[in-house]
Amino acid sequence: MRRRIVEYIKDMEIIKSTGEKEMFSEDKLCQSLKNAGAPRELANKVCALAASDLKPGMTTSKIFRSSLRYLLKENLSLAANYSLRRGVGELGPAGFLFEHYVEIILQAYGYKTVRNIMAKGFCVEHEIDVLAEKDGVKYYIEAKYRNEYGIKTHIDVVMYGDARLADIAKAGGGEAKLWLITNTKFTDKAVKYAKCRDIKLTGWTHPNGDNLEDLIINRKLYPITVLPSVKRYEREQFAKFGLLLAQDILPYSPEELANKFNIAFNTAKKIIIQSKEIITA
Amino acid sequence: MRRRIVEYIKDMEIIKSTGEKEMFSEDKLCQSLKNAGAPRELANKVCALAASDLKPGMTTSKIFRSSLRYLLKENLSLAANYSLRRGVGELGPAGFLFEHYVEIILQAYGYKTVRNIMAKGFCVEHEIDVLAEKDGVKYYIEAKYRNEYGIKTHIDVVMYGDARLADIAKAGGGEAKLWLITNTKFTDKAVKYAKCRDIKLTGWTHPNGDNLEDLIINRKLYPITVLPSVKRYEREQFAKFGLLLAQDILPYSPEELANKFNIAFNTAKKIIIQSKEIITA
Repeated sequence: MRRRIVEYIKDMEIIKSTGEKEMFSEDKLCQSLKNAGAPRELANKVCALAASDLKPGMTTSKIFRSSLRYLLKENLSLAANYSLRRGVGELGPAGFLFEHYVEIILQAYGYKTVRNIMAKGFCVEHEIDVLAEKDGVKYYIEAKYRNEYGIKTHIDVVMYGDARLADIAKAGGGEAKLWLITNTKFTDKAVKYAKCRDIKLTGWTHPNGDNLEDLIINRKLYPITVLPSVKRYEREQFAKFGLLLAQDILPYSPEELANKFNIAFNTAKKIIIQSKEIITA
Repeated sequence: MRRRIVEYIKDMEIIKSTGEKEMFSEDKLCQSLKNAGAPRELANKVCALAASDLKPGMTTSKIFRSSLRYLLKENLSLAANYSLRRGVGELGPAGFLFEHYVEIILQAYGYKTVRNIMAKGFCVEHEIDVLAEKDGVKYYIEAKYRNEYGIKTHIDVVMYGDARLADIAKAGGGEAKLWLITNTKFTDKAVKYAKCRDIKLTGWTHPNGDNLEDLIINRKLYPITVLPSVKRYEREQFAKFGLLLAQDILPYSPEELANKFNIAFNTAKKIIIQSKEIITA
């Protein structure tokens, strides 16, 4: 059965988020499921099911949603990991919530934080997204949020941060390191420059073992946007109240959740069940 | 007559290039014509004519084209100045031609130039758009082209360039100043930082008396895109051959121009007449 699907789809063109076309690769789809933690057998099963829905010209986003649906039926917690990148990318159009989210992550790892402070530079004043401190080491955090999917953070962003640090240091500002945290990947050149200048980078898939998804998954700091029952309307309602994490849902009863955020009772019930399942997995 | 128009339009909402609405201001329109060098009486006349074409919800771009048409009938050379900002903004979608245009401008002012060189930095290599030299002073030119109308160049671009210069200097690179040339305006903060760091900025309306439009007008370095007969098709044909300046048209006969660039003979004739008129004004 699986062999026939593979043959049928082997030459199918699909459309990437950038608008470019590429040949569908079942291996790539299976790998993305394994990356989210799915065991081989489960990954292959979900992958084959999603592949059977394929149509020429389908977008990668639609293929993702299709395999997410199959994965959801099998394992909600794996599905949360699988949708984490898109979930973080849906945090907020202005990036306002991302700064806050970064602060929450840092606090969960024992950093003392202050958000949105102004630092005097020699030439101009600088707005620092988050000032973080742990074990006597201070960091100026630049929280860079992009909601275009698949974009990388380039060297110019890293060098801009570096120049800000230099300007602050020149004004007699305290010793602090630059730490750039983003929901994107970095270009190789950005990584090379940061390493050379002792700048800390945390982003998607970088650095290995200690990247943004690791920080989130290890402490179950899932944004509510990974819960399958949280659609656009619920997302906006939660955002209004600054509610960011799936675990923040747990203290509520369905009635309370429905009333406080003005969402449907049945949806509220599902959201609570899904939060529990993800957090206690 | 003019009074009645003013009364009629005094409450009319128009749409800016950013999509924002604003109240139409006849004073502002007249001023933009005076800024292009139009004497008071002529500016008021053209302005009143354009105002009589106004309709609610009209875009500023359409209002601009309407007043350009009236100005053209009066004085082609003033019309070229008036359309200079949009003409430069139409140089090329990728900014490729803008770098070249910047080099041509610098050469016209006696700079020796090299385009697209790589400079060794301490951390990474840097691509320099133009290296320029005059009277023993060297400049690394960053040519920043934006084709969105009304955008400003922010401090991050200036600081990024500054950090590049620092990285090159750290690798033992020769003494050079940073010079950022753009077709946009600068934010106040960008200007403040550049002044503090001895970085040269040339952009739209900045610096006073020596800005990009001054450099262009003083040496008649008009881009062919300001010629009213150069529409999209002709612009693309000229761009293919790297033809940038109105003055580059002058050596051609109408037949030669039509043949070489594959454009209509009548259009070629008009383009040549308009170039002559602008260059000899």
